[in-house]
Amino acid sequence: MKLYEKLAKDIESQVRRGVLRHGDRIPSVRQSSQHHKLSITTVIHAYLLLESKGVIESRPQSGYFVRLTPADAVNGAANELVTSKPIAVSAQVDVSRLVLSTLRLIGAESAAPLGSPYPDPKLFPFDKINRYAYNIGRRKTQWGVTDELPPGNPHLIRQVARRYLENGVSVDPNEIVVTVGATEAINLCLQAVAKPGDTVAVESPTFYAMLHAIERMGMRAIEVATHPREGIDIGALSRILDTRRIAACMVMPNFQNPLGFLMPDEKKRELVKLLEHHDVPAIESDVYNELYFGDAHPTPLKAYDTKGLVLHCASFSKSLTSAYRIGWAIPGRYRDQVEKFKFLNTLTTPSIPQLAIAEYLENDGYEHHLRRVRKVYAQQANLMAATVMRFFPEGTRTSHPMGGYVLWVELPPDVDSMKLYQLALQQGITVGPGYMFSTTNSYRNFIRLNYSYTWSPEIEKALITVGKLVSACMR
Amino acid sequence: MKLYEKLAKDIESQVRRGVLRHGDRIPSVRQSSQHHKLSITTVIHAYLLLESKGVIESRPQSGYFVRLTPADAVNGAANELVTSKPIAVSAQVDVSRLVLSTLRLIGAESAAPLGSPYPDPKLFPFDKINRYAYNIGRRKTQWGVTDELPPGNPHLIRQVARRYLENGVSVDPNEIVVTVGATEAINLCLQAVAKPGDTVAVESPTFYAMLHAIERMGMRAIEVATHPREGIDIGALSRILDTRRIAACMVMPNFQNPLGFLMPDEKKRELVKLLEHHDVPAIESDVYNELYFGDAHPTPLKAYDTKGLVLHCASFSKSLTSAYRIGWAIPGRYRDQVEKFKFLNTLTTPSIPQLAIAEYLENDGYEHHLRRVRKVYAQQANLMAATVMRFFPEGTRTSHPMGGYVLWVELPPDVDSMKLYQLALQQGITVGPGYMFSTTNSYRNFIRLNYSYTWSPEIEKALITVGKLVSACMR
Repeated sequence: MKLYEKLAKDIESQVRRGVLRHGDRIPSVRQSSQHHKLSITTVIHAYLLLESKGVIESRPQSGYFVRLTPADAVNGAANELVTSKPIAVSAQVDVSRLVLSTLRLIGAESAAPLGSPYPDPKLFPFDKINRYAYNIGRRKTQWGVTDELPPGNPHLIRQVARRYLENGVSVDPNEIVVTVGATEAINLCLQAVAKPGDTVAVESPTFYAMLHAIERMGMRAIEVATHPREGIDIGALSRILDTRRIAACMVMPNFQNPLGFLMPDEKKRELVKLLEHHDVPAIESDVYNELYFGDAHPTPLKAYDTKGLVLHCASFSKSLTSAYRIGWAIPGRYRDQVEKFKFLNTLTTPSIPQLAIAEYLENDGYEHHLRRVRKVYAQQANLMAATVMRFFPEGTRTSHPMGGYVLWVELPPDVDSMKLYQLALQQGITVGPGYMFSTTNSYRNFIRLNYSYTWSPEIEKALITVGKLVSACMR
Repeated sequence: MKLYEKLAKDIESQVRRGVLRHGDRIPSVRQSSQHHKLSITTVIHAYLLLESKGVIESRPQSGYFVRLTPADAVNGAANELVTSKPIAVSAQVDVSRLVLSTLRLIGAESAAPLGSPYPDPKLFPFDKINRYAYNIGRRKTQWGVTDELPPGNPHLIRQVARRYLENGVSVDPNEIVVTVGATEAINLCLQAVAKPGDTVAVESPTFYAMLHAIERMGMRAIEVATHPREGIDIGALSRILDTRRIAACMVMPNFQNPLGFLMPDEKKRELVKLLEHHDVPAIESDVYNELYFGDAHPTPLKAYDTKGLVLHCASFSKSLTSAYRIGWAIPGRYRDQVEKFKFLNTLTTPSIPQLAIAEYLENDGYEHHLRRVRKVYAQQANLMAATVMRFFPEGTRTSHPMGGYVLWVELPPDVDSMKLYQLALQQGITVGPGYMFSTTNSYRNFIRLNYSYTWSPEIEKALITVGKLVSACMR
């Protein structure tokens, strides 16, 4: 291969792997010449070749720019994750011990938190909320017991309903039940619609909180094919619903953990229609809703619900503070059962955190805070994806998150993410092993990375180290 | 009946009903003469009659005093509750809707809180704890995720273990799992030892939190005869264990809600031995342990556990603050399952409340606070029992709580406590209807009263009103 062909191939590979994206300016001929220690002529030859292939374009007075769109880059590109194809067999769920032991080590404060499931708290206005909490505690000498009983503090419930309205979704405040985080909301919703031994359909990969809820109730999970950019495969789900009894379908249509996809609205509508046709309730976790990278709030599945079959769960843990563990359910026609199970499960959710968040929402700059977080996360998503593609070995692919703060990374097929996790831990770095996201070993060579932490040389260094360890695991 | 006989009978009745107790001085002859508008001679006659019957005694230079001991007063007295005799049939549990709707109205701030299940927060050092929480929130910008994951914050766990040691009970800190109140602890423990459809033995009457845990899991309850001063009838329990499969036995040996009894240590030992013989786990709620009226801390059932079969549950909600809902389980050999179910159920317990309580326990006057509370509650227990016996109609009997802050009142047999509850509510007064404490209607004519609130003319007036309403219900 000639020198100019090699340079052209390198640049094209960077484009196809997402390091350079549509509209990015590429280095000038002079810069490239200096950087690669090649003659000006060689670089010009390379650029002409790339231009002829449609990879880049020259703009008069401006220089060279990437022309390939993400969709072009995808075509035939090795960089894109493919739709999962799980085996259509229901399985017992027993993933929690692995998740707990993994999260325990992930949380060790000294380690680079690439495996953390939590957002970086430094971006969050906890000082303000803490002050609200303190003042509420001073004012309230007599606890209003009723304010705490399910469905929860009325002031907070009003603020939550108002927030949905601001985002263009009308919800009935009387349908809202406050919970201890989205975890409890998901548990109560599942308990309201299904019994031990029942089978529940989930995405593949699926967020382990869904698997935990299934495990807690002694139910079975069946994983459904899932598109990395569009979510659960409705055709695949339809075939499963046609052939067996499914008690519920658990999904994260907006910025799924770990894939980060945004299910198109049309598909949301179809999904609800399909489930309504089979009279199967949908449990939706929408905890990342506020953390979108696009122009507008994503629509929850709940917005397409016409029969009260969508049980919507969310929380403030990802968008405002994870210190208080305040979540809620909007359980449609199962509202009364969910309220009852909340009462049975934890009696009440503590009132000071509920009130502190309510007062913050009412008086402070929630939207302003979110705008800042969204911008930072969107930048860091690109940075992390590009860094991974640059420093991880050939055969690595990443998700293209549209919101949230996690990146799903497929490693070359012979890499065991559990072994990688152990090796990384020895270097003071954590990653989320793919085993946590399935009842099977299908995601043995996948890891989840957290990009919520402020980008720093340490994080870049940690990623480079992980990339080297991945290579080491391939031998 | 002659005047002196009538006076003697009135005084004896007051003694037998516990209004006047052993060692109490009774009014002097002159005071009684003025008060009852009777001649001195008549009063002297009455007192001589009572002396001859052994009800009172005269002490030189001092006056007349009640001689009858509580045990004497009991003999043949109409005042004493009798051992419950529930039918030995297991039942589905469906009590939570009634409890929730009742508690909702009970919590209305305007109403006299005789039905409240909560302690009066005014006696509690919440200002101090709130200040700890605020300072912790200011210090912690980076959340130590591991500190929150089950089993819970290590600092709090150490303080809880230390507190047991101070009370003469040695517990392994590694066995402690922090929970969202004792409610979650009881739920997780029950889930760890029994399956849906199993039968669980409970006291009769039983605290509704126990019934809720059984209802949540779709289990069945069998109520066991319970002595009003000594707790669950071990003979009755033994007969049940001999004849059917019981998955667990749920008890409150110390200051049971609603009876307030203190199970003698010898019976605790026997109970554990019996359960060990049948290999049946015991779930113990010990939330009132710190609120004893006697000379020393009661011993938890857990202290007699030799095989890890006692799952001990407690919280700070009754003794320090109910605002935070911090509880814990010490689940013996089921520790790992309980930890797992905690992780599945609510993921983590919020860390600031855990740390705030830990810092209070370490640095502040918990024992000093408790000494004050115990003294106040003991006085108010006597005051409320005496007031009930004075103003409620004949046929009323009360428990003799040895700790805690609730009084269990048996009303004449034709009084429906639900009807009484409704009538009282119309007068701005709440009571706890007996229906909440059983799977059957056995406690139809019982109510639970809360004496934690600072004694006041309003409370006395509310009790007098309830007494009149009881009479009205008899017609």
